[in-house]
Amino acid sequence: MPANELLRDACPAPPGSTILADMTFDLTTYLAARKRLVEEHLCACLPAADARPAELSEAMRHAVLSGGKRLRPILCLAAAEAAGGTAADALRPSCAVELLHTYTLVHDDLPCMDNDLLRRGLPTVHAKYGEALGVLTGDALQTLAFEILARTPEGRPGTVARLVAELASAAGAAGVIAGQVEDIRFAAAPTRDVLDYVFQHKTAELFRAAARLGAVAAGANDLDLAKLSTFADGLGFAFQIVDDLLDAHEAKAGSKPELSCLDVMTEAEARDWAAHRTQRAIDALEGLPGDTDPLAALARDLLSRIL
Amino acid sequence: MPANELLRDACPAPPGSTILADMTFDLTTYLAARKRLVEEHLCACLPAADARPAELSEAMRHAVLSGGKRLRPILCLAAAEAAGGTAADALRPSCAVELLHTYTLVHDDLPCMDNDLLRRGLPTVHAKYGEALGVLTGDALQTLAFEILARTPEGRPGTVARLVAELASAAGAAGVIAGQVEDIRFAAAPTRDVLDYVFQHKTAELFRAAARLGAVAAGANDLDLAKLSTFADGLGFAFQIVDDLLDAHEAKAGSKPELSCLDVMTEAEARDWAAHRTQRAIDALEGLPGDTDPLAALARDLLSRIL
Repeated sequence: MPANELLRDACPAPPGSTILADMTFDLTTYLAARKRLVEEHLCACLPAADARPAELSEAMRHAVLSGGKRLRPILCLAAAEAAGGTAADALRPSCAVELLHTYTLVHDDLPCMDNDLLRRGLPTVHAKYGEALGVLTGDALQTLAFEILARTPEGRPGTVARLVAELASAAGAAGVIAGQVEDIRFAAAPTRDVLDYVFQHKTAELFRAAARLGAVAAGANDLDLAKLSTFADGLGFAFQIVDDLLDAHEAKAGSKPELSCLDVMTEAEARDWAAHRTQRAIDALEGLPGDTDPLAALARDLLSRIL
Repeated sequence: MPANELLRDACPAPPGSTILADMTFDLTTYLAARKRLVEEHLCACLPAADARPAELSEAMRHAVLSGGKRLRPILCLAAAEAAGGTAADALRPSCAVELLHTYTLVHDDLPCMDNDLLRRGLPTVHAKYGEALGVLTGDALQTLAFEILARTPEGRPGTVARLVAELASAAGAAGVIAGQVEDIRFAAAPTRDVLDYVFQHKTAELFRAAARLGAVAAGANDLDLAKLSTFADGLGFAFQIVDDLLDAHEAKAGSKPELSCLDVMTEAEARDWAAHRTQRAIDALEGLPGDTDPLAALARDLLSRIL
């Protein structure tokens, strides 16, 4: 996330924001190395570019390998380490989380949803390969996420069943998809209740699943799993609030109305909310058996973008 | 399948079709009882109709509970029994297979795919709830299929991992979705190679997965698993050939071109092909430890629709 580092230089933390005091961890180097690791493994999970039907294989690779911060898989790996395991324990689950996330983006971009033609400066899947391939590529990425999990070597019996159940429950009709449905329905006139619901379901659930999958793969106990869930929930909320605040300062000509926390609160309230959720997230890391510096640094770096 | 029974009465098997000689099993009663069992469990797997967001829960229930022959889940249950287990072993996997199948129908019906407004005489999901809900309902049904599998009680360690891997591999980019992509691409001018590929991937893979999931849930050995895979493959091909032959005699005003075996062979050749695949399927049942009468009767009943 080098861009954030630059942004932080441009916007020094105001006096009093003690939450940002401890920023000695070299997050930029850490994130770059983890991003590389995740992308190498994502590449190996995907069908070869010429696998029949080539159009589908290409579209899947285009969707997954066209950049992105890889925040969720990095969270998954870091959670495994914070729980006392290794990043290697969580590599396959981390790829599954990113594939799941990518499928939601591909379907979100469809004409009947956000109708986006560009993502990260490149054509979206349906813009490049047609709408039917947009639907089918997203479908195939979701299937692949579960296949990757199913083929995770089991350290202890029942781990795969737990990983699949955790991801499915976060991603499904009581998780991410529920958030998307309420987002579409109430984007034009949200209430605070809707906002909380959408942030929790559409965004925080998958952050939470990322951390939990990493922790489960590392064999975490229930207490440590709960701590990491609290951390990831807070990080997810902070991420969404930061996203809304940064979006509010960008021109959005012709876009569909998007649900934003600024529909129901002021910018100052949103900043306070993000700082509060970040502090609670960092507090939850207390007592974990592994290295929690990367997680804390990630949370602080995110918050620094709006303070 | 009482309609088939009627149809069979109207079209008695021609002399010489010895494959249909043994039709003493009371398939109608069997199918009705199994359909009821599957539908009861499907109903319990789905979110309650008022679960938030209610629009999504309703759409999921509409998609799954609006009828259908339940052929794939019934195949799953019958395969468990043929492998020496019980239908109860395979109930959750059978529901997972039907949810997976239903998600493919919901997405197939979308405007950018087949653009169908009616299915079994009722409005399709996107026709009733809008296109965005059509995409998201299909997505949620796929997720639910894997969640149901993940929550299957494990008789022996590793069963869930195997069930998820089997279903994902049959449903994904090398299975059903691959078949759909080639179907869309070559529907207007198929070759025999394309036809075989689409029949195998779009149709037979899920029949095969249904049988394999039932067998795996029942603890089948590799040899019995292979026999049931051969059976289900043949049944899948026969099903698709029968479907094409019956469709050819229906008016299809205004429909998109659909891939049909009649594009690359005559009706007589198609009937021979179906009879050949059915015979091979029934032969493969030889030596299985459990009751194979329902599977054989199912295959014969299907074939009887075109002989």
